[in-house]
Amino acid sequence: MLTNVEHIGIAVKDIASSNELFTKLFNIPHYKSESVESEGVNTSFFKINETKIELLEATNPESAIAKFIEKKGEGIHHIAFEVDDILAEMERLKAEGFTLLNEVPKKGADNKLVCFLHPKGTNGVLIELCQEI
Amino acid sequence: MLTNVEHIGIAVKDIASSNELFTKLFNIPHYKSESVESEGVNTSFFKINETKIELLEATNPESAIAKFIEKKGEGIHHIAFEVDDILAEMERLKAEGFTLLNEVPKKGADNKLVCFLHPKGTNGVLIELCQEI
Repeated sequence: MLTNVEHIGIAVKDIASSNELFTKLFNIPHYKSESVESEGVNTSFFKINETKIELLEATNPESAIAKFIEKKGEGIHHIAFEVDDILAEMERLKAEGFTLLNEVPKKGADNKLVCFLHPKGTNGVLIELCQEI
Repeated sequence: MLTNVEHIGIAVKDIASSNELFTKLFNIPHYKSESVESEGVNTSFFKINETKIELLEATNPESAIAKFIEKKGEGIHHIAFEVDDILAEMERLKAEGFTLLNEVPKKGADNKLVCFLHPKGTNGVLIELCQEI
């Protein structure tokens, strides 16, 4: 079951200047920064009610975020939905015909197990399922 | 003050087939459909916790949604933040250097007054402010 829009990921070129920009936009500062080496990203988090805004900056040119920006420019990268049982949800969505980008949940930022769905099967929207570890 | 991620707008080519797709994805049906003639869009709404997912289909080739899909393909179109006082927030953001796409709030879908910020000033993210009428 999808229980919440846990966060929205935004690909940015320079996280330091984007932190300033989004602080002005939201009128609140980011409350956390985190690097995820396995994904080649630096992240920072803002929170509006029950949804986080996650800024993502690539740390190397092979990072998915670097490739996204090269192809599409900066902007909204993915929507992450919180699920109560990630394995059950992955099973359900696979049976419904969605394509999972990782067949086994992987460790993401913010202490989460995550699974991505292929955007070709979701009208071009990159969807993340995430569950607190 | 931005109080909630009120909705996420997703541009789709064919709202009927996308309604089916997102019903499978969310495991819940959409609860509302609405046409906004002034914007040239048909919309449908799903709700996950406190955030809506708004599907947007163009009704004519001059619609902003038609142009978006032509340029970027289907996908996430905008993020809408609920504000408690849209006029005050527009004033504050203008003073912070953001560019408003409409200087006066306009009537959007779902019984809202809305204002968009130019994505050039927000790392490529089209941001909507909205306030329940």
